[in-house]
Amino acid sequence: MSEARQRGRRPGAPDTKAAILEAARVRFAANGFARTSVRSIAAEAGVDPALVHHYFGTKDELFLAALALPVDPREVLLPAVLAGGVEDAAERFVRAFLSVWDEPEIRVRLLAVFRGVLDAEGGRLLREGFLPVVLQPIGEALDLDRPELRMPLVASQMVGLIMLRYVIAIEPLASLPGDDVVAIYAPTLQRYLTGELS
Amino acid sequence: MSEARQRGRRPGAPDTKAAILEAARVRFAANGFARTSVRSIAAEAGVDPALVHHYFGTKDELFLAALALPVDPREVLLPAVLAGGVEDAAERFVRAFLSVWDEPEIRVRLLAVFRGVLDAEGGRLLREGFLPVVLQPIGEALDLDRPELRMPLVASQMVGLIMLRYVIAIEPLASLPGDDVVAIYAPTLQRYLTGELS
Repeated sequence: MSEARQRGRRPGAPDTKAAILEAARVRFAANGFARTSVRSIAAEAGVDPALVHHYFGTKDELFLAALALPVDPREVLLPAVLAGGVEDAAERFVRAFLSVWDEPEIRVRLLAVFRGVLDAEGGRLLREGFLPVVLQPIGEALDLDRPELRMPLVASQMVGLIMLRYVIAIEPLASLPGDDVVAIYAPTLQRYLTGELS
Repeated sequence: MSEARQRGRRPGAPDTKAAILEAARVRFAANGFARTSVRSIAAEAGVDPALVHHYFGTKDELFLAALALPVDPREVLLPAVLAGGVEDAAERFVRAFLSVWDEPEIRVRLLAVFRGVLDAEGGRLLREGFLPVVLQPIGEALDLDRPELRMPLVASQMVGLIMLRYVIAIEPLASLPGDDVVAIYAPTLQRYLTGELS
């Protein structure tokens, strides 16, 4: 359906979409990703659930839309890690990660989202949404052994890297060339993905 | 000097100490650790610099007192990493780290400090104070090659572990036995301390 036809049929659509996104943020933060239904978000926004699906697709899509990320992390990360074998997936993962975080215009917008993740409600969004929607599918696509443990390990290093390189911006990490970041962190992540853990 | 004698001589001492600590927090947050002098903190608190040294010792000690940590991280970490060779210092580092973070009563108080680190001013405290006062001395005591790069790498993993295991509390990381945490993270930290990085 074209944007023009949508607008023609629903002059109030932009407000409706904003109301749905706001309702999604409220419900996901209050009840967590797993225990929030599209139906409850629709009720909070005062619209029909079918309209939510019409605008946003699945609950996963709605969750990512509610986060208001400048890029879809699945489109950045999944094709990259699946572009070769699992034995060097971590290097491609780090390069894909840097391809967005090292772009100043994208980084500014990612940092705004990430700072929200640092508060209590945002923490819940990450805990209950980002892992199942973004990271677990990567672990499953790579057919990892114990993805439910390994992907949080990956997250624990990437969150710390985001904190020190971008949020707190500690030198020399903040200015380290991307190739050095890959050389340092890809072996860590590769072990988390496929290595011995005990 | 006994506490009784201090009190006898200076009835207003507790307020004076509190005023110095508050001034230290303000100055360190505003100007960073390196560019803040004990003299400027004394001026902000309206006391003589000698009194600041008398109560708190060096600028490093004053910084740690201003952070209001429930334990002195140097007393927890330094003896542990120096209790054996550098080749397995990371395992002792992680065990010492867990000995405080996995104690519920201490963790509650550490989390309160850590949440402060997550805001803009707190980030500056960590960036400009915690690394030179706590982490760099560990790197130097271990006689590391390139401690100014390696200790921030250690910090990048430990901050991420704190975020996922304690702040966001993602499972299974949040409930993982300490021995498993050591088995997973000590090899990462050992490589950051002494391994090849490129």
